[in-house]
Amino acid sequence: MKFSFEEHSHRRFNPFTDSYVQVSPHRSKRPWQGQQERVAKSEAIAYDPECFLCPGNTRVGGEVNPDYKNTFVFTNDFGALTQDIPSGEYEDGDFFKAKSERGICKVICFSPDHSKTIPQLSQEEVFEVVKTWKREYLELSQLDFINYVQIFENKGEVMGCSNPHPHGQIWAQESIPDEPLKKQLNFTSFFLNKGENMVTAYVKAELNKSERVVYQNEHFVVLVPFWAVWPFETMIAPKTAISSLAKMSDEEMASLADAYRVLTIKYDSLFEVSFPYSAGIHQAPTDGQDHPEWGLHMVFYPPLLRSATVKKFMVGYEMLANPQRDLTAEKAAGILRDL
Amino acid sequence: MKFSFEEHSHRRFNPFTDSYVQVSPHRSKRPWQGQQERVAKSEAIAYDPECFLCPGNTRVGGEVNPDYKNTFVFTNDFGALTQDIPSGEYEDGDFFKAKSERGICKVICFSPDHSKTIPQLSQEEVFEVVKTWKREYLELSQLDFINYVQIFENKGEVMGCSNPHPHGQIWAQESIPDEPLKKQLNFTSFFLNKGENMVTAYVKAELNKSERVVYQNEHFVVLVPFWAVWPFETMIAPKTAISSLAKMSDEEMASLADAYRVLTIKYDSLFEVSFPYSAGIHQAPTDGQDHPEWGLHMVFYPPLLRSATVKKFMVGYEMLANPQRDLTAEKAAGILRDL
Ligand SMILES: O=P(O)(O)O[C@H]1O[C@H](CO)[C@@H](O)[C@H](O)[C@H]1O
Ligand SMILES: O=P(O)(O)O[C@H]1O[C@H](CO)[C@@H](O)[C@H](O)[C@H]1O
Repeated sequence: MKFSFEEHSHRRFNPFTDSYVQVSPHRSKRPWQGQQERVAKSEAIAYDPECFLCPGNTRVGGEVNPDYKNTFVFTNDFGALTQDIPSGEYEDGDFFKAKSERGICKVICFSPDHSKTIPQLSQEEVFEVVKTWKREYLELSQLDFINYVQIFENKGEVMGCSNPHPHGQIWAQESIPDEPLKKQLNFTSFFLNKGENMVTAYVKAELNKSERVVYQNEHFVVLVPFWAVWPFETMIAPKTAISSLAKMSDEEMASLADAYRVLTIKYDSLFEVSFPYSAGIHQAPTDGQDHPEWGLHMVFYPPLLRSATVKKFMVGYEMLANPQRDLTAEKAAGILRDL
Repeated sequence: MKFSFEEHSHRRFNPFTDSYVQVSPHRSKRPWQGQQERVAKSEAIAYDPECFLCPGNTRVGGEVNPDYKNTFVFTNDFGALTQDIPSGEYEDGDFFKAKSERGICKVICFSPDHSKTIPQLSQEEVFEVVKTWKREYLELSQLDFINYVQIFENKGEVMGCSNPHPHGQIWAQESIPDEPLKKQLNFTSFFLNKGENMVTAYVKAELNKSERVVYQNEHFVVLVPFWAVWPFETMIAPKTAISSLAKMSDEEMASLADAYRVLTIKYDSLFEVSFPYSAGIHQAPTDGQDHPEWGLHMVFYPPLLRSATVKKFMVGYEMLANPQRDLTAEKAAGILRDL
């Protein structure tokens, strides 16, 4: 009997974060008797008078949204990070260490149309979203106390998204959070050892193999990472070294918008449901330094496992040991590619 | 304005895993319009003819459960880890590294009574569960290829638990998974530097402060870690250095059973619902070495945030940056202590 990825339990290494995923391909046939997710009813209305994000409506903090035409950005009325706090540091022995954290939380409405999601917007409209990200990244990086900008999107009720109006968020802060910091450490040592950006080197290797590539256009590739954790996890990454949105040309931004749109259209058709996910961009910190080691990339973590109502639970073993998946990355890529 | 934990955004450091949690106490007042969890209907029946775990029933693999009286352990019919695989290693450049992983997945029925959960069992019955853990840990550690044993419990539909029959799991394997490995690295350097077990030193420090202590008995403490991530996350840890279940006396096991019971009774009364969580024990690897640096401790990760139907979503920012919480650890401990 020969060891095979398609049949036998194995661990795969993630060199971006120095972590492992347990792959159990033989387990795909397991019956499921547990919780079924609700399928969110499609919101057919283009304008909801109760929505905090629709144009012209009054938000929870009392402000009135402008009559915006494409994207609209405002500071979150209940931001987890705020600017106006005193700074303080607390250290007491080996176990009690804490530090104040300043930051800014923003909301980006992707479209005035309450009923649309990214895959339902036009290429031009998604391009506007990407341009808004760049503008925000540049603006926030001007602020001295902002060293990292996390752009992300939670889509779907199952992802804790409390409003179906198409929107994303930006949390910008003093510290570099754990996930991008892990990547930064590994990107730095790769850059020092190989003289190359790790993301670019990885994209080249995947394009060579092609089995995990889902889609590509002129400047970007959509792929299922070799070490993917979520059943249909994907990454959008550039074919050449780009450290952050700040460095992106209009052409590159249009390519990213196209990849984002194509991928989310594929996602929606996978289980014929508005496909939930958390997605976000990891890129160079805004600490005023040049970061040649950094490669911008966008990741998608969708929870659905085998239908619109059966999701993968990252619980028990996953919380206490490491992530576990049944479907291999190669199979997932094949399914997404063929859609 | 003075910086205060109760009011201002801050980051806390977790020295067990070298990670951070973003605390946003000012955000507790945020309104919630998102997904509501279902409240699982209480299963009043002591025996369910359809249940794979009830005594005398036939499991999905065809085997018949014995007519067991307290606990019952069997090998999972759909284990993510199995014994009978060929070994193999795959390495291709910098990005494609994988290795076969042998292991054993077991299920532990906590009681023959389908309708009971841990907080509804007697002290004697929970003591039986702890003794079963020890027996399994010892038995698995005899196997040459098993270097780590993860004991855990997923409770509740919202935690992906597909069967309400009271049960836990054991996944035992060749490698030490990511979470315990991170702890091992930090425990080792602490032990080398301070000549003391990190868990024991931490418990002492928390007993001194007392504000995060929820409950204690002769040998064990229940506390909310300073760096807790989940709203009502807790840890059960011994007052003296104990590296694993293998080293525990009957008295200590009875103390652990009592702490486990008292904590879960508190949890059930918090929102007057059968309280969902993932829980598990981190302890010394079973690699044949003595692990004086290791301190056994049990952790509880419950998802509920502010009622039986509103849970904390670890999505978006949490997946891409680091975990975030609103309620402080001190407040959570106070609430649990006073129940
Ligand atoms: O083994 P179960 O209870 O069927 O499955 C549950 O626990 C496992 C271990 O934590 C997880 O991998 C699964 O995602 C979850 O649904
Ligand atoms: O900010 P929202 O959409 O209200 O909240 C959602 O996203 C946040 C950032 O990922 C999470 O911290 C919350 O748990 C989640 O419910």
